[in-house]
Amino acid sequence: MTKIRTAMVGGGIGGFIGEIHRMAMRLDDRFELIAGALSSDETRAMESAKDLGIRGYPTWLELFEKEQSNIDCVVIVTPNDSHAEIATAALSAGYHVMLDKPMTRTLEEAIVLAELAQQTDCVFSMTYSYTGYPMVRQMRQRILAGDIGAVRTVSVDYRQGWLAEPIEKEGQKQASWRTDPKQSGAGALGDIGSHAEQLARFTTGLSIKQVRGDVHSLVRGRKVDDHACVQVKMEQGVVGDLVCSQVCTGERNHVSVRVWGEKGTLAWSHDACDALKFTAHDGTETINYCNANRAPSGHPAGFVEAFANIYKDMADKMQGVDVQIIDAKEGLASMMWIDAVLRSQETKSWCEV
Amino acid sequence: MTKIRTAMVGGGIGGFIGEIHRMAMRLDDRFELIAGALSSDETRAMESAKDLGIRGYPTWLELFEKEQSNIDCVVIVTPNDSHAEIATAALSAGYHVMLDKPMTRTLEEAIVLAELAQQTDCVFSMTYSYTGYPMVRQMRQRILAGDIGAVRTVSVDYRQGWLAEPIEKEGQKQASWRTDPKQSGAGALGDIGSHAEQLARFTTGLSIKQVRGDVHSLVRGRKVDDHACVQVKMEQGVVGDLVCSQVCTGERNHVSVRVWGEKGTLAWSHDACDALKFTAHDGTETINYCNANRAPSGHPAGFVEAFANIYKDMADKMQGVDVQIIDAKEGLASMMWIDAVLRSQETKSWCEV
Amino acid sequence: MTKIRTAMVGGGIGGFIGEIHRMAMRLDDRFELIAGALSSDETRAMESAKDLGIRGYPTWLELFEKEQSNIDCVVIVTPNDSHAEIATAALSAGYHVMLDKPMTRTLEEAIVLAELAQQTDCVFSMTYSYTGYPMVRQMRQRILAGDIGAVRTVSVDYRQGWLAEPIEKEGQKQASWRTDPKQSGAGALGDIGSHAEQLARFTTGLSIKQVRGDVHSLVRGRKVDDHACVQVKMEQGVVGDLVCSQVCTGERNHVSVRVWGEKGTLAWSHDACDALKFTAHDGTETINYCNANRAPSGHPAGFVEAFANIYKDMADKMQGVDVQIIDAKEGLASMMWIDAVLRSQETKSWCEV
Amino acid sequence: MTKIRTAMVGGGIGGFIGEIHRMAMRLDDRFELIAGALSSDETRAMESAKDLGIRGYPTWLELFEKEQSNIDCVVIVTPNDSHAEIATAALSAGYHVMLDKPMTRTLEEAIVLAELAQQTDCVFSMTYSYTGYPMVRQMRQRILAGDIGAVRTVSVDYRQGWLAEPIEKEGQKQASWRTDPKQSGAGALGDIGSHAEQLARFTTGLSIKQVRGDVHSLVRGRKVDDHACVQVKMEQGVVGDLVCSQVCTGERNHVSVRVWGEKGTLAWSHDACDALKFTAHDGTETINYCNANRAPSGHPAGFVEAFANIYKDMADKMQGVDVQIIDAKEGLASMMWIDAVLRSQETKSWCEV
Repeated sequence: MTKIRTAMVGGGIGGFIGEIHRMAMRLDDRFELIAGALSSDETRAMESAKDLGIRGYPTWLELFEKEQSNIDCVVIVTPNDSHAEIATAALSAGYHVMLDKPMTRTLEEAIVLAELAQQTDCVFSMTYSYTGYPMVRQMRQRILAGDIGAVRTVSVDYRQGWLAEPIEKEGQKQASWRTDPKQSGAGALGDIGSHAEQLARFTTGLSIKQVRGDVHSLVRGRKVDDHACVQVKMEQGVVGDLVCSQVCTGERNHVSVRVWGEKGTLAWSHDACDALKFTAHDGTETINYCNANRAPSGHPAGFVEAFANIYKDMADKMQGVDVQIIDAKEGLASMMWIDAVLRSQETKSWCEV
Repeated sequence: MTKIRTAMVGGGIGGFIGEIHRMAMRLDDRFELIAGALSSDETRAMESAKDLGIRGYPTWLELFEKEQSNIDCVVIVTPNDSHAEIATAALSAGYHVMLDKPMTRTLEEAIVLAELAQQTDCVFSMTYSYTGYPMVRQMRQRILAGDIGAVRTVSVDYRQGWLAEPIEKEGQKQASWRTDPKQSGAGALGDIGSHAEQLARFTTGLSIKQVRGDVHSLVRGRKVDDHACVQVKMEQGVVGDLVCSQVCTGERNHVSVRVWGEKGTLAWSHDACDALKFTAHDGTETINYCNANRAPSGHPAGFVEAFANIYKDMADKMQGVDVQIIDAKEGLASMMWIDAVLRSQETKSWCEV
Repeated sequence: MTKIRTAMVGGGIGGFIGEIHRMAMRLDDRFELIAGALSSDETRAMESAKDLGIRGYPTWLELFEKEQSNIDCVVIVTPNDSHAEIATAALSAGYHVMLDKPMTRTLEEAIVLAELAQQTDCVFSMTYSYTGYPMVRQMRQRILAGDIGAVRTVSVDYRQGWLAEPIEKEGQKQASWRTDPKQSGAGALGDIGSHAEQLARFTTGLSIKQVRGDVHSLVRGRKVDDHACVQVKMEQGVVGDLVCSQVCTGERNHVSVRVWGEKGTLAWSHDACDALKFTAHDGTETINYCNANRAPSGHPAGFVEAFANIYKDMADKMQGVDVQIIDAKEGLASMMWIDAVLRSQETKSWCEV
Repeated sequence: MTKIRTAMVGGGIGGFIGEIHRMAMRLDDRFELIAGALSSDETRAMESAKDLGIRGYPTWLELFEKEQSNIDCVVIVTPNDSHAEIATAALSAGYHVMLDKPMTRTLEEAIVLAELAQQTDCVFSMTYSYTGYPMVRQMRQRILAGDIGAVRTVSVDYRQGWLAEPIEKEGQKQASWRTDPKQSGAGALGDIGSHAEQLARFTTGLSIKQVRGDVHSLVRGRKVDDHACVQVKMEQGVVGDLVCSQVCTGERNHVSVRVWGEKGTLAWSHDACDALKFTAHDGTETINYCNANRAPSGHPAGFVEAFANIYKDMADKMQGVDVQIIDAKEGLASMMWIDAVLRSQETKSWCEV
């Protein structure tokens, strides 16, 4: 199958989300990353491209100008304030666009961009990553299929702890742009509240009509919101409570979405991302496990990564790094063990390995 | 960084473990798969290679002969009975080797192969996949560092349910060769008991001295073992109990390893592969979570796969498949929600979205 | 030790909370129930007393009049609308009072009763049962001791599903009075919201200053609230979100309280009532288990009940009911098993039991 | 209903299991403890009886002689070595007997006692406490009813950590008699292996035909076994693995029993004693929760104990101990909160509490 020729804007080496995008592209091998303007810092942009073995450009303007029809698709992973401009240019140039969330820094920009996206024939998609989990998708399908009856209430709880301290003051890169209203727009609301809101709509298929938010900057001196509890009213009389916080000390990246209907309940939690729990009227819980991952049924989502770690060690070893690998001595020990067990079964006695 | 030029033997399209190996290679992008003899069925071998866009060969003999020094590394994912022959040829040809477990069909073959591996300068590694989990590695490190004191006893419980019915009689491909002693050697002992045994040694750093196995074929008519409980005696007076079974109905792929020492206990379970639990004398449990995955701390191992699902949909959409994507309308709805929440905070009232 | 002579008002046989109170009294054997006006239905009141083997009265007025100083303590477990009157009479008569929550039907009644309680020398206590859990108490102690630093935010989630259907229309006794505003006052807010609120204050030691509630009757035709999300502002700038609902289909009796501070987090859930979870800044979780139950450390809270089931069977058997007990044959089988295991150890072989 | 007049032998104040027996008797109020020979130390025996407010005797001989037909039932909670003699005397005297497990110190004693129990009309029961859990009983019923098809294999894992150190050398009372072969017979095998074995038989309804045990005293210098792994062969070709250990550091009192059949699996764990998990062929888990406890459905087994803690505080307060109770001020605060929430709903605004 022809691979999709792709360029990336933002995502220089050392960042976080750019490399996630690249791994995601490689996993199924349908995108081929061929060019990039990987940083607003031109030197870093060029060095990052060299590291990745792709064609590098100091700016996305130059990238679009030079690559022209060599690329099919542009992946945008810059801070929020440049989303609108770059996405507009990419769509206008006829490229398909994969844009990291949230859409833009301001609502005004989003309205204009959405109109443009509507008019083009290009595919425009955003990485609301939680909707990529097979069990979140199954949750939606089951709710739309009526498995829990008419929906009554929804709760999404998204809590992180990484901004529990004012780390933006120490220049932590991820924190700095996310807590600068000029670059990010909203704070926790934009960064993770947008996921919470999207999950509420995605799983129920219902839109949100009204909100009443209690929004705080709980860390003294912070310039954007870092904690919010939002009461919501959705279509069909559904009510909901959405909490997003980045100052809940110790929370790694807790996301849960629960939807109660007249006939039952469905609940998903990021902590056990391969499971989907249905609870019936009588309290009986039925848990389904994902069989739509890339590893075979019964293997958790991390299986591919574990396997990749073995290959990483192999690559290291072959390139001269002294790491521990599972070598022939190990393989032999295992074979000797199997042999001893079978002998012990035959002789009904203890056997030396 | 130069990529490692790699060939694969076995692993034709439609199989299970070959594709896992390929995804694992792509994830960190350090191996480049360039050639393959992907099936013992020549037609399937050639078609699979074409699908993958690599150079195909009808046999591994021809592959080695033609590719010569074009490849650095050979990945072997054939049934157990051909491991010895292919690995021997690959090492003799000067290739690095990644071999799927168990090492060989018989102990005799393993002894010879281990000697050969010892003599070459090639890297020889095996995919005992559980040792690829970061928290299994951390478990080993902490035990070797003395965190639980002198080890007393070890328990490994590995249970699957997929062979609970005699599905080999219906020609199920994975079941057929695994339950045929000529191709597989042992049954559950080789297929998963080898993992159990390896985990006991890997986590403790101790070798197994004696075993007493109670080995069964619980499904009537099965030609290999499908269930075993093995009492083991290890170095330093450590005792253990290892169970491996493929007939435990409903078990997806349960693997747990627990090691009790004089000062505390460490336990890991595949069901929660990102966690490592330490229990102190007084029963207090301390749970550490993985921060060595490719996703940032707090994201479970499945995060990369979820992200890849979003890209998969994007690729499908761009190539004309009608799938649901997170489009501009979705992105706009999210921005409108954020805007409404901030307005509601300002006005202290309910706001329309 | 002298037992406390106790009378009960409300709690006739067949009800729910009265029997819980009686079991709680018996468990430590410090209260002796000697009299009761156990129902507003006089016949049921007298029959219930006879069943319990205590002195029965048709009304609490007569009970107080006749028993005078024979009783030390009155337990009140009637519907909310009679709490104020009975408690007032009991305190005025010089009795200690144990009152089921909520305090009264209306706030006005509560103000008057609280003043009276303040003025007497009698002990006045209420059964906010969640504060009886040892780990909820430990949570409070640790927060007051500064284990999580300054508190930032609190979340209490209390959801039941038993009123998910309009069962009050079918005359279900528990539902009927709880959904009748004349008897109960508020609905879910009074019945379980009161627990949620109490847990927020009890665990943090902080009072609530302001609230903004989104209150609903989600089941059509219900006369009281059955679902609420309340945003709260507490002392010291702490913010919180409290949800109470009785229409969350399938929820058995889910109560969780989580408190995030500047240095860490403490969380308790009714689903695992013997555990208290602390999460540090770096995401490491430390779980302490209760050792303050009546069973020895390591036994869950249900151990005493399991033991009581064995005695229940014994009593049944002795009184002619044909139930299965663990008889001598069972005991002997167990002894034969131990003997066989020891023989097998000696002979290193399989032994007949 | 007439209460059963009961005497206890052993179980003096300060011990462990005697008080558990007494609480279990009181919970349902069908046994009335009226007399006791509560210790082999005569002074302690008399003082313990006085504390409990029952008739005390220095020896069980004197108890039986004096009480004659005043008692219906004798509860025996002495160390194992006196079980046979006392139980024999009690049965011979015509008393019903509740005997703590294991039955006797030696198999020979058990055989004689079982014969006697068979011949009398007295009820003879033993407190294998795990069979008292409602979900263990439900597990048995479902297996006998065929819910998992023909049973294939059973695993019982019972691990404690309290003997991980040689505490018997420091004179710890519970440890001393349990590790003295003269008083206890076997060590871990008798103390908890007996529970493991009983659970295997109780849940499956199958007897054990053969065993092969690997039995150890892992703590240096211990006179009885403290760790064992037992391979078992049961009726109908069922195989099993039973582990019991008292030296697994940090294990509080872990007991799990899992039974795999041809159609599915049932599993119960003491850690979540109110739940029973069924796993179907396809890996879907269905969890049922107990509704046979004394608290209403949805309340965990610990609810009664939590309630009793509230009463304990009340009793303390009334008897002059300065403990915190949920007083009128607390009750009022709760009422004010409810009122404020309802006002905020009406005014759609924040309200002062």
